[in-house]
Amino acid sequence: MRTLKLTIAYDGTAFAGWQMQANQRTVQGALEEALLPIEGTRVVVHAAGRTDAGVHAAGQVISFSLASQIPCDALARALNVRLDQDVRVMHAEDAPETFNARFDARTKTYHYAIYQASVVPPPLRHFVWHIPRALDVAAMNEAAAALVGEHDFAAFRAAGGDVVTTRREILASHMVSRDGQVVYEVTGTGFLRHMVRNIVGTLVDIGRGRRPVEDMIRVLLSGDRAHASATAPPQGLTLVRVDY
Amino acid sequence: MRTLKLTIAYDGTAFAGWQMQANQRTVQGALEEALLPIEGTRVVVHAAGRTDAGVHAAGQVISFSLASQIPCDALARALNVRLDQDVRVMHAEDAPETFNARFDARTKTYHYAIYQASVVPPPLRHFVWHIPRALDVAAMNEAAAALVGEHDFAAFRAAGGDVVTTRREILASHMVSRDGQVVYEVTGTGFLRHMVRNIVGTLVDIGRGRRPVEDMIRVLLSGDRAHASATAPPQGLTLVRVDY
Repeated sequence: MRTLKLTIAYDGTAFAGWQMQANQRTVQGALEEALLPIEGTRVVVHAAGRTDAGVHAAGQVISFSLASQIPCDALARALNVRLDQDVRVMHAEDAPETFNARFDARTKTYHYAIYQASVVPPPLRHFVWHIPRALDVAAMNEAAAALVGEHDFAAFRAAGGDVVTTRREILASHMVSRDGQVVYEVTGTGFLRHMVRNIVGTLVDIGRGRRPVEDMIRVLLSGDRAHASATAPPQGLTLVRVDY
Repeated sequence: MRTLKLTIAYDGTAFAGWQMQANQRTVQGALEEALLPIEGTRVVVHAAGRTDAGVHAAGQVISFSLASQIPCDALARALNVRLDQDVRVMHAEDAPETFNARFDARTKTYHYAIYQASVVPPPLRHFVWHIPRALDVAAMNEAAAALVGEHDFAAFRAAGGDVVTTRREILASHMVSRDGQVVYEVTGTGFLRHMVRNIVGTLVDIGRGRRPVEDMIRVLLSGDRAHASATAPPQGLTLVRVDY
């Protein structure tokens, strides 16, 4: 068996997230269905980041075992013919046999886009969180920078998560202004479920002046989800890159 | 009665074009329906450019008469609450009573976007024509430049068009490369139906090396639609700006 490593992109709008669910259109389901006629039997696909419903990917990485000897370029083309246009294989390559896209990921980078002007241009509507007022981006950037390092991120996890440890390391965390949008860019060794969206919810409350900059550290140290702001909506979030 | 001038934007993907048609979702229909409860009676809306199904607008201009004394900002907000998010009122202002968005337009600017790489990123799929090979953009630009001036554009009109004259003046016509896309930008005093898409079809054949650069002038002078290339698909086209 070979192990394949694919970089894929998707518009998450019409997907119930990455992970296979009965009677739901998911990215994993779409890929496994497209692989079926190539391999002749079910192939189980692993993803670096199991994105939620409405969350996008520009550089998601997936891996799977394949008996078929189809060349990588032909595999990418065959999948793109079978897949709907809201999910695309951008690149395919052979990987070492033990490679696993999820467990071998060293860092992941997410971008969360906020649109500040009063009206969102229609092509952006599924890719931004609309906050129709001026945000204090400098304050948000200061709060974002405070997250860099290894911390217990329990305060920013989704309710009901059952992970072994809530410690994660953030390598980069800052705001950038781009094309009229305010974007939160974060790179880390791993992320708890809803962690980026919970951080963004708190950042936006700081940007709106509803909370002081220091609240970011206060929430982090509390370890209590009840202290963080509401979860930001999914459509602003994109998994941009995974490094191995 | 007041005359209103609105700048609107739309994602044309899910519309059967601008113009009202029975049992079809059109931009005109959506706007007139949204205006109905504000005015209490049907309002007829005029657009600078009657875009086809699948064609987008970033700066379409519309006009209509209104008895209601609702302030412009409140009108824009009320319409945006009623409209689906794929059409947005970007700006609203009062205009001279005789203003007509269609007949008073001096120039219109369209952009047509072509995506050259092998795979289209999902968020762009409804906004580009995918040509997965390298185009000779310099040749396309030379051919595009040859259209500047006042000419008879009969060779680039849609079959069955019944206009009084097929003479139009093109003020700017060139290719630009932007964010991995090749974009045809054209400004003119007016455009025949399918004119931009027919020009783009011919430009792309020149870019592919299937036709020489001089063919653009040859097609133009022939006045014969049969000499131009096939019509480019609608989704690459956006009405960007209208000047008065």
